[in-house]
Amino acid sequence: MAEHHLDDSVTQPFWDNSVEPRLEIASGDTVVIECAEPAGQVTPEWTANDLAQADRTKIHALTGSIFVGGAQPGDVLEVEILDMAHKGWGWTGFMKGFGLLAEDFDSHYLHHWRLEGSWCESTEVPSLRIPFEPHPGCMGVAPLEPGRLDTVPPRLNGGNMDVRDMTIGSTVWMPVFVDGALFSTGDCHSAQGQGEVCGTGIESPMTVTMRFHVRKDFSLKEVQLRRPSPLSKLDGAGFHITTAHGPDLMENAKNAVRYMIDWLTEHHGLDRGQAYVLCSVAGDLKISEIVDAPNWIVSMHMPLAIFS
Amino acid sequence: MAEHHLDDSVTQPFWDNSVEPRLEIASGDTVVIECAEPAGQVTPEWTANDLAQADRTKIHALTGSIFVGGAQPGDVLEVEILDMAHKGWGWTGFMKGFGLLAEDFDSHYLHHWRLEGSWCESTEVPSLRIPFEPHPGCMGVAPLEPGRLDTVPPRLNGGNMDVRDMTIGSTVWMPVFVDGALFSTGDCHSAQGQGEVCGTGIESPMTVTMRFHVRKDFSLKEVQLRRPSPLSKLDGAGFHITTAHGPDLMENAKNAVRYMIDWLTEHHGLDRGQAYVLCSVAGDLKISEIVDAPNWIVSMHMPLAIFS
Repeated sequence: MAEHHLDDSVTQPFWDNSVEPRLEIASGDTVVIECAEPAGQVTPEWTANDLAQADRTKIHALTGSIFVGGAQPGDVLEVEILDMAHKGWGWTGFMKGFGLLAEDFDSHYLHHWRLEGSWCESTEVPSLRIPFEPHPGCMGVAPLEPGRLDTVPPRLNGGNMDVRDMTIGSTVWMPVFVDGALFSTGDCHSAQGQGEVCGTGIESPMTVTMRFHVRKDFSLKEVQLRRPSPLSKLDGAGFHITTAHGPDLMENAKNAVRYMIDWLTEHHGLDRGQAYVLCSVAGDLKISEIVDAPNWIVSMHMPLAIFS
Repeated sequence: MAEHHLDDSVTQPFWDNSVEPRLEIASGDTVVIECAEPAGQVTPEWTANDLAQADRTKIHALTGSIFVGGAQPGDVLEVEILDMAHKGWGWTGFMKGFGLLAEDFDSHYLHHWRLEGSWCESTEVPSLRIPFEPHPGCMGVAPLEPGRLDTVPPRLNGGNMDVRDMTIGSTVWMPVFVDGALFSTGDCHSAQGQGEVCGTGIESPMTVTMRFHVRKDFSLKEVQLRRPSPLSKLDGAGFHITTAHGPDLMENAKNAVRYMIDWLTEHHGLDRGQAYVLCSVAGDLKISEIVDAPNWIVSMHMPLAIFS
């Protein structure tokens, strides 16, 4: 059970099953993986104007791939997330045309966070801090389809799943499509709500430690995982919850976030950009009911511990 | 600040702003409200065949309405849920043509629960029990529209919201559309997951204690609430999570539930009907990401404490 190290001197802003792997390991091995700043370019000095001119071809700056010996199409790659260590800084932002409320926000916005121990401290809003509860936004194996695929949409190979539950102590199971699986990861977030509604979490360079096993005893249609309790370090002071009903889950989700932004600006003195960012890094979108035809309810949950 | 009592000798399976209220109270008053079995007919002796022949015109058997003095259109009705007490029994079931996976389940199913203190114990699956974490599935004020409206879909007046977070200790804020608000409630669930995917929670007659205030200091577009921590008594042993990606949130939700049913039947010995019911009463549907176009991810979260 060897331990390997994979640096971020080369990053991979695409999925491509023909690229040579950078590391070969055996099932049971552990790899310490350096993951670059997710967009492959943002620094603590950047402003919203810099973000507006970002080079989108560098997104996401993934590290990989890792060839896992013995993995074959039809198998399952088991990935244990043993540790994630930040490097003191992260950012959240949104760009015109991207994010759940792109139609409402005709602007660019960039928010920097100072990462101190187990906290993410806003450098823009005094006293605003949220717990470090990290996950890799991207974890994927090489896809079955040939060619270079965009990293933005998640696919059957996993990829940019942005599932906040894939945190330290979680085990993720992914279907394998090519020999060796060819695993890559990156796009680490120091915190993110369910939904990632403004389009980013707290985007952070990190050192990630993962252990890999090839599983041949079951198969999977899509990614599954197991995560530890508690679901959130912020589940201590209750939640403010907005609800939105209607026949379209997407419209309901947009409205639930809009109502939460209204509430944050009216009751907590945030401007609309700050409120949108807070919804993205700490608000959770849930489907409260999906059976009372023709109207479903989507709700956004904001932990009140943030304000106490 | 008077305390009133409203029995369930009359139930109201519709919304109608012209019906005479059964009780008039002042802002600040508390009401102990008896809530009938939600379908207005099911008993502990019923079988799945009885459920198949249920009289749908009796659903939901709500108690009300309550005229809250001083409430006017444009105000907000604040409802504090002070207590909910079960009466020892509840049921979960599904009927042909109703529920998120109606296309997969061409059958009727009825599952009875024994409610003992703070636990819901399955009478169908030995050792399966889940905590009593109740909410009123229906809470609503009289709608603005005239006539008798079906209670199944939630609307601007609230109604059949099935928001599991409206639990003991929660405060719910609802927009008011008619003089006196004309509040009704019922359809109590002893437990329910986010989504209520099979169409029912643990449907239970209960005694509900609520305190009402008229708020004129703010207005609301849709219902909002505040709930206490913790989010779940089952957040102690981690969660198994299925994910489903694609461009349609509804299809993703269906697939996430299908994968969870597969997992429950393969790993925990439940039959498919039992697994579907367990997803409905204890599984939570969340929107993991809604920004990585064109593929969104919906996930279902099953607390592992159920099996420990």
